[in-house]
Amino acid sequence: MVPDTTNTRRGSRSKGSRSNDQPVPQDVHRLPGHLIRRAQQAHNRLWVNEVSAEVTSPQYGILNAILASPGIDQKTVGEEVGIDKSTVGDVVNRLIERKLVVMYRGVEDQRRNLLYLTKAGSLVVADIAPRVLDMNRKLVAALDEPEIERLVSILEKLIASVEENGSGS
Amino acid sequence: MVPDTTNTRRGSRSKGSRSNDQPVPQDVHRLPGHLIRRAQQAHNRLWVNEVSAEVTSPQYGILNAILASPGIDQKTVGEEVGIDKSTVGDVVNRLIERKLVVMYRGVEDQRRNLLYLTKAGSLVVADIAPRVLDMNRKLVAALDEPEIERLVSILEKLIASVEENGSGS
Repeated sequence: MVPDTTNTRRGSRSKGSRSNDQPVPQDVHRLPGHLIRRAQQAHNRLWVNEVSAEVTSPQYGILNAILASPGIDQKTVGEEVGIDKSTVGDVVNRLIERKLVVMYRGVEDQRRNLLYLTKAGSLVVADIAPRVLDMNRKLVAALDEPEIERLVSILEKLIASVEENGSGS
Repeated sequence: MVPDTTNTRRGSRSKGSRSNDQPVPQDVHRLPGHLIRRAQQAHNRLWVNEVSAEVTSPQYGILNAILASPGIDQKTVGEEVGIDKSTVGDVVNRLIERKLVVMYRGVEDQRRNLLYLTKAGSLVVADIAPRVLDMNRKLVAALDEPEIERLVSILEKLIASVEENGSGS
């Protein structure tokens, strides 16, 4: 599966032992993580060129989720869009600063902050949505239909498993 | 192209009363770009937890490429690791500041800046390399062998096509 391209070099961490074995470079090119990072970089570059240089992909995800569920709270919107808990607050705050989103304190549960689109936010979503679809078509233009299906289902499986096992640690 | 969204949404907080000229939320969950972003987020989270919170995945890629080709120049190392031209300089500078990499001006071609690992940089690569492999195994733990193969080859195809078509625009 994941090729083992490392040599052993550990034991030489103790101060006295001067090790001769130099570390051997790893062939990272076919490591899944390396390819996922590069794919996201390619996606991000396409996004900036084809969708928007002002609204990022996570920001759009949040605007779109608020459009689907006006009054959604910050925690839920982060889960819905798949944004790390540690960063969703920053993303939302940037949208508020740019007056695309407004936040109200919940009446019944004052710890819940309810999010709504402003009119400008609503216009931004309407403007961007069709471009997101066009950009996604370009992103997978080299793939045929079954490959796209496989990519989607394999990534879904990978994401679900990492989120399940990795979120606590 | 931009739908008329003149309708005010204030006051009509119940979902049922959405008027016809509102933009319609998009189902992003199965868009390839959305899944690639989330997969990279999962990869990044695993990286921080399992590999290193100090050395990022692109930084490691550069250290590893310099180990493979001491004296490689900045442009080439960026291509080798698949890092955008616009950011490779920043990543290299951070490694220089942290004394993991040194840069020399080329003797024959003074515009070429040649990169070498310091001893500390070499130790960092040796320390991280096996953890990168372990982390990659966890990243794809939910996938069977053919799925991993398919993921790798589909992502390679996607990246190559976007880099070919998208880099100029």
